[in-house]
Amino acid sequence: MNTDVKSNGLSRREIIINGGMAVAGAAIASLGVLGGAKNAGAYASASIYKYKKLDPRAVGQVAYENYAKRWCASSVIAGFVEALKKEQAGAEWNDFPIDAYRWAHGGMAGWGALCGTMPGAGVIIGLVTKDTDTAEAMVNDLAFYYAYTELPSFTPAKPPKTEIHHMTMAGTPICHISIGKWMRAEGVDFLSDARAERCARVAANVAMEATGMLNDWADGKYVPKHKPLYNVIANGITSQNNCGDCHGHDVPGVVQTYPSLDK
Amino acid sequence: MNTDVKSNGLSRREIIINGGMAVAGAAIASLGVLGGAKNAGAYASASIYKYKKLDPRAVGQVAYENYAKRWCASSVIAGFVEALKKEQAGAEWNDFPIDAYRWAHGGMAGWGALCGTMPGAGVIIGLVTKDTDTAEAMVNDLAFYYAYTELPSFTPAKPPKTEIHHMTMAGTPICHISIGKWMRAEGVDFLSDARAERCARVAANVAMEATGMLNDWADGKYVPKHKPLYNVIANGITSQNNCGDCHGHDVPGVVQTYPSLDK
Repeated sequence: MNTDVKSNGLSRREIIINGGMAVAGAAIASLGVLGGAKNAGAYASASIYKYKKLDPRAVGQVAYENYAKRWCASSVIAGFVEALKKEQAGAEWNDFPIDAYRWAHGGMAGWGALCGTMPGAGVIIGLVTKDTDTAEAMVNDLAFYYAYTELPSFTPAKPPKTEIHHMTMAGTPICHISIGKWMRAEGVDFLSDARAERCARVAANVAMEATGMLNDWADGKYVPKHKPLYNVIANGITSQNNCGDCHGHDVPGVVQTYPSLDK
Repeated sequence: MNTDVKSNGLSRREIIINGGMAVAGAAIASLGVLGGAKNAGAYASASIYKYKKLDPRAVGQVAYENYAKRWCASSVIAGFVEALKKEQAGAEWNDFPIDAYRWAHGGMAGWGALCGTMPGAGVIIGLVTKDTDTAEAMVNDLAFYYAYTELPSFTPAKPPKTEIHHMTMAGTPICHISIGKWMRAEGVDFLSDARAERCARVAANVAMEATGMLNDWADGKYVPKHKPLYNVIANGITSQNNCGDCHGHDVPGVVQTYPSLDK
């Protein structure tokens, strides 16, 4: 058992730097070796759902428009389903249970864990690609996109009721951190129309990015941008690369935003 | 706009305590007021999937047995699907795309965000209950269960190849923190058979808990244990209640576990 507790005698900063990258090169070479999970090969699933290439901008716009009534996860799903119905990609889409996944909103029922836009897209990706390795690679690429892109860059077709002024890089797929960084930049609270406008646009961006991947895949030319399970191998645990957002003395202070009771 | 940046002049500890609970009572009274999301009412979905009451222990055992080849999210789904097929709950379950959701493993493709056991259960809950408010309440209850129960308490039907010796309380639905706390208690690395055994048992526990909720619901007697969106209202942002796991000076050191390349 290769267990080496280094939390004593090293600064947290050193731990994070060493833990994050030191063995990444060598370890990635052994990507297939994942302990008790080594038997998890690629599986074809029995999904009946077909795909046709879509206009990313159209998918994003519908995702954006659905946010106020469906929140993040189901809004992304709605973007795909409406476009796939329009393209007549298969009768199965007609009754797709878009709202059966709404609980994934807000990092799962508001717990602030995983931003719901990605699992929303993941539902479509998993059902459409019917191959676990391809879906894994796409969702992984989507997490890299979400974490390391300044968002939201989407602008709605018509001017919105509430304009917003900032884009931020989350560094993570975690809802709480992603939203918190943007709220700080914009100077608004969570229960504001501006924050809702931001999340609606993020849903559009994620839907557009996923559409691009699926279009490439439909053309037989999707190539993963990032190594699946990179983070696991690099850090020796399921993880992200924004270690300092939690570990370390530089965790930002809290923007205290009480609910506005007078709305 | 009620924005009040308090990160200067207050200790982080004060911020967290005040931010966490001070206005909770008053704010929860206005639970319906959620800014731009105020239009998100309850929706019935078009899902075709039916439910029959199941033996939680049987669902858990199948989830456990599936872990090595399907990982957390799809293992929980497999537990339900196999049991529902056995109970002849509807022909729709026969070809259910169990592996279409495998990307949710390890906090989404190994990113350590949301533990995949809960979204795995959520897929079944959403499709079966066909009502967004019920699904939201169940998934929320499941997150409270996951965060505040010492896990895993499940023991497999037959003695496993690798025995494990600890249960830990995650305080969060976040995969990385949940696994990290358990790894520290057990003294093993992530790529160990012991860690895989632990996650397989957690999948069983979550599947069993979700089965209990759905059985109550099938009897018309499911009552949420916790207020939906409690965390959002209490903390003024999508969030959890383990603030000190990231904010503050008491973030634990890192158990440094390099991948074992000689396996």
